Amino acid sequence: MDNETTAPVTVLGLGLMGTALARAFLAAGHPTTVWNRTAAKASALVAEGARLAPTIGDALAAGGTTIVCLTDYPAVRDLLDDAALEGATLVNLTSGDSGQARETAAWAEKRGARYLDGAIMAIPSSIGTDEAVILLSGPLPDFDLGALGTVSHLGEDPGLASLYDVAGLTMMWSVLNAWLQGTAMLKTAGVDAATYAPFAQQIAAGVAGWLPGYAEQVDKGSFPAEVSALETDVRAMAHMVEESEALGVNAELPKLIKAMADRAIAAGHGGEQYPVLIREFERP
Amino acid sequence: MDNETTAPVTVLGLGLMGTALARAFLAAGHPTTVWNRTAAKASALVAEGARLAPTIGDALAAGGTTIVCLTDYPAVRDLLDDAALEGATLVNLTSGDSGQARETAAWAEKRGARYLDGAIMAIPSSIGTDEAVILLSGPLPDFDLGALGTVSHLGEDPGLASLYDVAGLTMMWSVLNAWLQGTAMLKTAGVDAATYAPFAQQIAAGVAGWLPGYAEQVDKGSFPAEVSALETDVRAMAHMVEESEALGVNAELPKLIKAMADRAIAAGHGGEQYPVLIREFERP
Repeated sequence: MDNETTAPVTVLGLGLMGTALARAFLAAGHPTTVWNRTAAKASALVAEGARLAPTIGDALAAGGTTIVCLTDYPAVRDLLDDAALEGATLVNLTSGDSGQARETAAWAEKRGARYLDGAIMAIPSSIGTDEAVILLSGPLPDFDLGALGTVSHLGEDPGLASLYDVAGLTMMWSVLNAWLQGTAMLKTAGVDAATYAPFAQQIAAGVAGWLPGYAEQVDKGSFPAEVSALETDVRAMAHMVEESEALGVNAELPKLIKAMADRAIAAGHGGEQYPVLIREFERP
Repeated sequence: MDNETTAPVTVLGLGLMGTALARAFLAAGHPTTVWNRTAAKASALVAEGARLAPTIGDALAAGGTTIVCLTDYPAVRDLLDDAALEGATLVNLTSGDSGQARETAAWAEKRGARYLDGAIMAIPSSIGTDEAVILLSGPLPDFDLGALGTVSHLGEDPGLASLYDVAGLTMMWSVLNAWLQGTAMLKTAGVDAATYAPFAQQIAAGVAGWLPGYAEQVDKGSFPAEVSALETDVRAMAHMVEESEALGVNAELPKLIKAMADRAIAAGHGGEQYPVLIREFERP
């Protein structure tokens, strides 16, 4: 095996993200081949040292690891349908869902390629820094994508990268929405967003620290009310809904929080602790 | 002024929380007077050194700071309606909303009392530790409730403690729900909750760190798409909804996240950054 940090790589697709990936590889000293449907998009990268492959076949023949970063999964299949994939290592960082990832993995493996699916939790400008999180799933990688950011291999199921990605995005938007809800409430009392933000930050980080402990309850399927019972929580949820309505701010998020808890109580879980709501989240 | 840590205090209401408050005062060496409608509930505290006031008038006459911790605000008004409040300092830690807090403050001040409203972000068993957060609002306190936990004075508006409390609870349940949503999604791929929890924790704490910066955009009312534009985010939100539906887990939380963003885009904010959603959260 080559020295990992300088192993050759190929990047297929030079949109904003693909370009950022190729640039990070070049900066880390990887011999980098690039290909794009519109070759003109490669000119800046070529000036920085990339080799432009004239055809997709030539790009794949360059050897090393091939990173795929296109618009969507159908575009990936279109592009590679006629290509020789035998012996290739494909890392597909195109955005998609877990079903597409698993289907594409099966398709690629049937054609003799080693296939990993991935998700990029980062914006193009942070690629190449530790802040850029690259999630991988599929066979254990025998290459090093450390030039791109912080790389995590999540397991052999090629759907895992997509699932972790979408779960992480749900957390991201939930924290932002809860913060906006609180900010809207406090603005009615003349408190500015900057004054409230550190408080919201502290609560979010504090509650995040409870998750590993709560996860044990979920895995055991046992939810003793060590801290608080759901039927107690729901009284404070009623306050949250009423306060939002009284202040004239949006009440949809508080109402959804209360509705999920009400349903769990109706299902007989009022004396148990919050993580018992997994039963509701698992249900369509 | 007395030595703050040993200044006399009175606790009105000996439910689970009131009892925990009185016990923490006693443990810190405060001369502590207690009163409860059913005097028998005070016996353990009296054995620990509390003085039981036979009447509410006697309890108030004990001087020092009077902590009120009853079932609800109407119970507070009922109890104190005929009492001599002139010169008293009341700290009302009863659960309620900002409207009730402001009304009760006006009522108490008219009767010559110094009134602070408060909220307890803690369970009874954590009272007396740093983890118990006590929020206060109203006139600047001239007493020390440090025996109870970590005390924050939020400002002169007596409604602030309730508002911060309910905003904090919204954050708490939002982090828990986002974690449960992700846990439900990953369970479909055989990933247990304990495996996913540290990832969720890291995302929540990481996003919490963005809030002070995003708050500046809210306060300026200017939302340039430095990181990502809402119309880009909404594509990933569509993935989140579709993935939840495809996996057969609950999709209400992902749908609410997308619906709020769709509305902001419909209102012309698609080219702006996420915190522009404050416009939607401020609207009923």
